[in-house]
Amino acid sequence: MTDVVAFPDSPGTTAAAGFRAAGITAGLKASGNRDLALVVNDGPLQVGAAVFTTNRVVGAPVLWSRQAVSDGVVHAVVLNSGGANVCTGPEGFQDTHATAEKVAEVLGASAADVLVASTGLIGERLPLGALLAGVDLAAAALAVGTEAGEAAADAIRTTDTVAKTAHVVVETPSGAFTVGGMAKGAGMLAPALATMLCVVTTDAVVDASTADAALRAGTRSTFDRVDSDGCMSTSDTVALLASGASGVTPDGAAFAEAVQAVCASLARQLVADAEGATHDIAVTVTGAETEDAALAVARAVTRSNLFKTAVFGNDPNWGRILAQVGTVPVEVAAFEPDRLDVSVNGVQVCRAGGAYRPRDEVDMASQREVRVDIDLHAGDASVTVWTNDLTHDYVHENSAYST
Amino acid sequence: MTDVVAFPDSPGTTAAAGFRAAGITAGLKASGNRDLALVVNDGPLQVGAAVFTTNRVVGAPVLWSRQAVSDGVVHAVVLNSGGANVCTGPEGFQDTHATAEKVAEVLGASAADVLVASTGLIGERLPLGALLAGVDLAAAALAVGTEAGEAAADAIRTTDTVAKTAHVVVETPSGAFTVGGMAKGAGMLAPALATMLCVVTTDAVVDASTADAALRAGTRSTFDRVDSDGCMSTSDTVALLASGASGVTPDGAAFAEAVQAVCASLARQLVADAEGATHDIAVTVTGAETEDAALAVARAVTRSNLFKTAVFGNDPNWGRILAQVGTVPVEVAAFEPDRLDVSVNGVQVCRAGGAYRPRDEVDMASQREVRVDIDLHAGDASVTVWTNDLTHDYVHENSAYST
Repeated sequence: MTDVVAFPDSPGTTAAAGFRAAGITAGLKASGNRDLALVVNDGPLQVGAAVFTTNRVVGAPVLWSRQAVSDGVVHAVVLNSGGANVCTGPEGFQDTHATAEKVAEVLGASAADVLVASTGLIGERLPLGALLAGVDLAAAALAVGTEAGEAAADAIRTTDTVAKTAHVVVETPSGAFTVGGMAKGAGMLAPALATMLCVVTTDAVVDASTADAALRAGTRSTFDRVDSDGCMSTSDTVALLASGASGVTPDGAAFAEAVQAVCASLARQLVADAEGATHDIAVTVTGAETEDAALAVARAVTRSNLFKTAVFGNDPNWGRILAQVGTVPVEVAAFEPDRLDVSVNGVQVCRAGGAYRPRDEVDMASQREVRVDIDLHAGDASVTVWTNDLTHDYVHENSAYST
Repeated sequence: MTDVVAFPDSPGTTAAAGFRAAGITAGLKASGNRDLALVVNDGPLQVGAAVFTTNRVVGAPVLWSRQAVSDGVVHAVVLNSGGANVCTGPEGFQDTHATAEKVAEVLGASAADVLVASTGLIGERLPLGALLAGVDLAAAALAVGTEAGEAAADAIRTTDTVAKTAHVVVETPSGAFTVGGMAKGAGMLAPALATMLCVVTTDAVVDASTADAALRAGTRSTFDRVDSDGCMSTSDTVALLASGASGVTPDGAAFAEAVQAVCASLARQLVADAEGATHDIAVTVTGAETEDAALAVARAVTRSNLFKTAVFGNDPNWGRILAQVGTVPVEVAAFEPDRLDVSVNGVQVCRAGGAYRPRDEVDMASQREVRVDIDLHAGDASVTVWTNDLTHDYVHENSAYST
């Protein structure tokens, strides 16, 4: 596998053969910026898989797309920013249905093979006329190539300061295949509940169950490890579309690895663009009895506002880290409090549950990335979870969001 | 029961007969402010009870005091700000032990009947010489009356902008008894993990099991419903001391009600003094199948940074509330997403899971208190949890804390 190519050098969804994309202005955003994206799989295969939020309150697009993807066939994905279409009742569901029907009509496809994803404010209906007219505009703009992929990635931005794209080319004995993708989701990282949308495309020849397995494994170790507490937004959607246009049938492991690599790059880009953040923080828990135990400890730390504000202050406050580790119940993660080690940016500030190296040896101010390593000394499992610091700008952006 | 009298009109721990208190400067704080408090029970009874943090990482004072209170006899409580004595190893435990021994010596008591509580930074040892000299100063300053109770409440402040005290007098057919108390803990409310300390005193005649039951019931419905996720700090301690000096033996229910009333007043004072907050938020969940279900839903909302920043922006963003309600698993709380109602400050902005009254009917800007009411329509149980908004000042105070 070659290295992953990331934004701004990757077209994203149009990197793989067999895909066209478009990103246009439908008028859903007051700003006049692009707000509607369309990604079309021209085949020969139209294999699809998707994973969705676990939130019990979900938008109409999630209700629709869950059904649409269940047969493993996806022809196109239509995505909009400027409104999430969540908590909009039966009327909102009809809007999503009408959008899928419109896409099907312009593509000569079946609406049941069209996924819909929406992001923006909750509780307000989308302007259906503008949305349907936007589908016509997008269909007319569909193209292969870098510009089209970039336009699609741009159109799904909400508070994202940059578009997120990535792709990778994998050489196999029988030829090369490509996996590419785009994502949005600047706000999801600090709290839960700001929407993450992602479309991954590939020209590999895979069946629906291979695609589904690769997508689930790929998201579990990437997007699911950014922040957080598993409390996803009402709209989170990650879709994978396979065209088979390369004619290459990779083995399942090689394919899964490529999907994961693209998801990892996109997830890392989300962290780097988190709302108002000044630091990206990688919390790695080692020495855990199980991966689940490591994950519980890492998430206890990445959820802590006190920890995240300390990082904003460039303060390697290992006391707040240990106190957060201590909140994990013993039945979830076995460890002895007086055996815990903590390093920040490679400096072991806590050893065996007590102070060790002086905190002023830790340099946090000179780089955006902060590494926190916690050794539980209770086993061999490890996990890394990414989060961001909690800053003035985070408060500002999220208190001003809906105004 | 008469109304609860609160700070600044209540002396707190010296309201009840049989108690002396002191608050002095031992030199633990760089500011030179008071930092050591002593509360002494002169009897005739020396009944004690206490509840502590559930955190697995705990300070030496918690380890000590858990043991000291286990026989139901407490003669005195010594409390310091300026250092939490957490993650300080065997040496830190020896410091706590030495402090209790010193208090016992000056009072002619047993160290095993002295509780110790500390708050401040984690991971640094306390200056033992200053601490022990401070005990001498405090013992010399012990007094009954308002001034002494106020000084003690002042000495346990960390980032608290005001001292917190309260008391209530309860008339019974056989005479009156008093319950009073003091607390600190401005920072605990927005996140978990900033320490809450509280000492409640009473001159009622109660035995240790009555005291313990009243304290557990009283804290469960008050301090435990401020914020949060049950992830308490490494040092949280709430102690109850009974002197019996009134000669009045109340029935258990009347006594528990008085303890709860004092705890409720102190908890409300903590909310009102939360670090950097501009709003106190009461999230009430009604129509739940069980109290636990209501609590889980309320805490899911009060934990949300997105919700808390929206409140800071005076934005009745019911979409963020519903999305947070949706994160509660169905096995924890039964409800149908399309039956949820939400009101903010009395205006029903969401009905049956969708938009209802216009959000601009909600006035949040003109008052500090914000009421959020969520009806699950799934039963008869209800719960109120208090929290605060997430503000610029919160970020500032917590990023600057240890510097």
